Amino acid sequence: MVRIMQPVLIDGVWREARSVGTFQAVDPSTGSPLPGLFPISSFEDVEAALAAGRQACKDLAQASPERIAAFLERFAEGILGRADELIETAHRETALPKAPRLGTTELPRTIDQLRQAAEASRNRSWRRAAIDTKSNIRSIHGPLGGPVIVFGPNNFPFAFNSAAGGDMAAAIAAGNPVLAKAHPYHPATTKLFAEIARSCLEGPRLPTATLQMIYHLRPVDGLRLVAHPLTGATAFTGGRPSGMRLKEAADRAGKPISLEMSSVNPVFILPGALREHGEAIAAEFSASCSGGAGQFCTKPGLVVVLDGADGRDFLAAAKRNFKAPPSGFLLGRSVLESLQASVSEMAREGAEVLTGGKPVDGPGFQFENTLLKISGRAFLSHPGRFQHEAFGAVSLVVLAGTEEEMLRVAEALEGNLSACVYSDKAGADDGLYSRLAPVLRTKTGRLLNDKMPTGLAIVPSMVHGGPFPATGHPGFTGVGFPASLLRFTALQCYDNVRPDRLPPELQDENPTGKMWRLIDGEWTRK
Amino acid sequence: MVRIMQPVLIDGVWREARSVGTFQAVDPSTGSPLPGLFPISSFEDVEAALAAGRQACKDLAQASPERIAAFLERFAEGILGRADELIETAHRETALPKAPRLGTTELPRTIDQLRQAAEASRNRSWRRAAIDTKSNIRSIHGPLGGPVIVFGPNNFPFAFNSAAGGDMAAAIAAGNPVLAKAHPYHPATTKLFAEIARSCLEGPRLPTATLQMIYHLRPVDGLRLVAHPLTGATAFTGGRPSGMRLKEAADRAGKPISLEMSSVNPVFILPGALREHGEAIAAEFSASCSGGAGQFCTKPGLVVVLDGADGRDFLAAAKRNFKAPPSGFLLGRSVLESLQASVSEMAREGAEVLTGGKPVDGPGFQFENTLLKISGRAFLSHPGRFQHEAFGAVSLVVLAGTEEEMLRVAEALEGNLSACVYSDKAGADDGLYSRLAPVLRTKTGRLLNDKMPTGLAIVPSMVHGGPFPATGHPGFTGVGFPASLLRFTALQCYDNVRPDRLPPELQDENPTGKMWRLIDGEWTRK
Repeated sequence: MVRIMQPVLIDGVWREARSVGTFQAVDPSTGSPLPGLFPISSFEDVEAALAAGRQACKDLAQASPERIAAFLERFAEGILGRADELIETAHRETALPKAPRLGTTELPRTIDQLRQAAEASRNRSWRRAAIDTKSNIRSIHGPLGGPVIVFGPNNFPFAFNSAAGGDMAAAIAAGNPVLAKAHPYHPATTKLFAEIARSCLEGPRLPTATLQMIYHLRPVDGLRLVAHPLTGATAFTGGRPSGMRLKEAADRAGKPISLEMSSVNPVFILPGALREHGEAIAAEFSASCSGGAGQFCTKPGLVVVLDGADGRDFLAAAKRNFKAPPSGFLLGRSVLESLQASVSEMAREGAEVLTGGKPVDGPGFQFENTLLKISGRAFLSHPGRFQHEAFGAVSLVVLAGTEEEMLRVAEALEGNLSACVYSDKAGADDGLYSRLAPVLRTKTGRLLNDKMPTGLAIVPSMVHGGPFPATGHPGFTGVGFPASLLRFTALQCYDNVRPDRLPPELQDENPTGKMWRLIDGEWTRK
Repeated sequence: MVRIMQPVLIDGVWREARSVGTFQAVDPSTGSPLPGLFPISSFEDVEAALAAGRQACKDLAQASPERIAAFLERFAEGILGRADELIETAHRETALPKAPRLGTTELPRTIDQLRQAAEASRNRSWRRAAIDTKSNIRSIHGPLGGPVIVFGPNNFPFAFNSAAGGDMAAAIAAGNPVLAKAHPYHPATTKLFAEIARSCLEGPRLPTATLQMIYHLRPVDGLRLVAHPLTGATAFTGGRPSGMRLKEAADRAGKPISLEMSSVNPVFILPGALREHGEAIAAEFSASCSGGAGQFCTKPGLVVVLDGADGRDFLAAAKRNFKAPPSGFLLGRSVLESLQASVSEMAREGAEVLTGGKPVDGPGFQFENTLLKISGRAFLSHPGRFQHEAFGAVSLVVLAGTEEEMLRVAEALEGNLSACVYSDKAGADDGLYSRLAPVLRTKTGRLLNDKMPTGLAIVPSMVHGGPFPATGHPGFTGVGFPASLLRFTALQCYDNVRPDRLPPELQDENPTGKMWRLIDGEWTRK
């Protein structure tokens, strides 16, 4: 069989890559390569895409929000129309279950995100138009003037896909073209999305380079890309080492970069809650930890309880729960290897493996559900060493000797996407909660009560963000419309600009009659 | 006369610095040192201030917005009460005129900023509270959890003073304590502000470390400070080399940094406007360029006109105007030396000095008002070399050969704080404007029509920001309330958090009855 090299999408045309190598996706359930042959693009491809992307910025700036919204909605429809093919392809490339995952939750979420992005675009309130009538100074959030580069992660082939996921939808709704860099674990899935997107551009007459797609790059070319003068901004979701390298390159060039770089998502279970329903929490914990084979950004990777009878009972229940479910497939060999390394490192540093701890025999990429424990004192002696995300169904329970030690563990935490506190209903935990919550509040983007962190509602008030090193800036969210659009915007002021030269959103008359604007300090739709 | 070393303000106490050296301010009108002896703090001082600042974060988080507002208002009153002393001191340290500058515009602006910050704090709408009632997910902008370090610039001893200016006011209104690093050109002025601020903390019972102040640091200690684990964020206004070094240190540590690092503030005067009132524009131009001795962030440092009879007439008129006013005093010897170097570099690169170009004889720091010209072609051969801010009354006029060349000059611009376009009233320039404005829009935070960029109205829609290298991130503004507060905040989500544990701004009931909140996608005060 002659292998055909898959084409890249540059400026609306599916063309042969100027490649520096090839790769194949791998079926995680068998470890065997899948048939498609994909190019690793050279920087020539990148430069062609950036040039086309820059031109698309100019054309998109002239396109109405309605046309952008129409594209996003058609794209959502198009995805729905090819759902079976997408689910089949993604299942093959990721081994994630078709149900209850790919077809039942992730694809609907992806479609919902595109529709919410369309609604945000059409509504325009996300632009936060501000008008000071007396001085005739007006300002608004607008697109960046350069394409947004989206590096998709391995773990959500649909919802965070570089060519169809939340970052892509937000960047385009904000008026920026997107250059999608597929994750090499699911190139065929990404290509399908790009095909559908491409076919939806003509109806609403958007520029051909509104969405472009390449599959893979040498790391050095990724660094050049995020720092390129034509680049508008970058969105990266993935592991910390790659994220930090991209951050450094983008920072040095003064290019905005939205990063989501890992998190251990600490869960504090206070003594009253343990007493009240420790067994039930242990069940929630193991379900949250092992969902998606533990490959969620918000997987609870660190649990803190007080040492004592209730803590030990919780640990025993958690251990039973961890043993029960079969291990899911990990997304690739590198995930398996990293996970093994993470567990080995924690064990070497003094954590005790209670269950699991090694790969599952077989051809696919599987690792036993793994629970570790460590004392609060040992954790505190080297807190940094126990806060590396172990990407998979692995969690570390810290047994704190005292409430004070529990607080010190909280103080020693790095920035996280989420932090949870379980407390009792009777109020016995309230005193400890009131001391713990202010500490956690400055360490996390999302603070939860009485529930596990996995599962993100796509609502306007969601925050998927947090202090470094979970992300690169604590003021933004990567999930939730319309707030996630702001990551890809510039704040633009019009000072004494003549009325007919203002963007419609800043003219005296409200362009939709519904858009919220801040006029002389008051939000209004007038 | 025995010189007393001036004390630093750490945790509410005026105490002797752990110093690594001393310095004196200099009277720019004479070049002679002023009497006060000030310490260069060691990192011990910094660490003491950071530790106190971190504790103040916790206490401020419990303080009501009303108490923070009361402090800011008392501070404004206190400044008013010691206005004469402040004006006298700042005049001595900066040689800026008492009127029409220090006493008549800058001090009133500073007081107004503090009052606007107080109003923002009390109003709370800046926090952009968002509530999704169905999912019970709520989010809000909140303080960072670490003190904000403010590095004040040399050019605004009041309005951007690290202990009383816009950054200080914004950071505190957002609930963060401030560690002010005085500019060494006006330490006595800064000390006065810190004294007044200190005296206003007790009434509203704010933490003693809400405002702390040191005078000077070794550069290496500045880099350690912005990257310190206890630091919340940094605000820096100043020159590009220092800004870039601080940016790199902060970025590497993942610490937010708000930067304002220089701008040439291009002004495009289109042919019709030149024809219609070139002479008047030339007068506006020279007044804007020489105001404050050219030491404004938004000074027009680059003017682009079409070559031809009208362009030459404009140049001749500008030259006359530049010659007319006496040169003001520059803020210090280093400003004079940098300015001389900038002019020499432009001349070496091919710009022709039309008037000025050298220091004014005398004991003080003065430089002739300087106008240079260059052809569009020469500019475009090395555009980067002509975009270094020359901090002083110096401007470069680019004579573009054609409209196309004018557009290419615009395309070659770096990020700027402002960009202006003058066009005629009859409409002859409209075609060119419509091609030029989209290019400038992506290069600047503030786009102006028919007026010069100096003079910032402190209104909610003002943007004092722009793409790198003017600032570090195009999504923020350093001037204008309440938007400037957002630079010093984290976006914080409360997911399923019990009602009595929510901050008042996120509880069902509106805490003030007036605060704007985004509830289920609609802005409301309910």
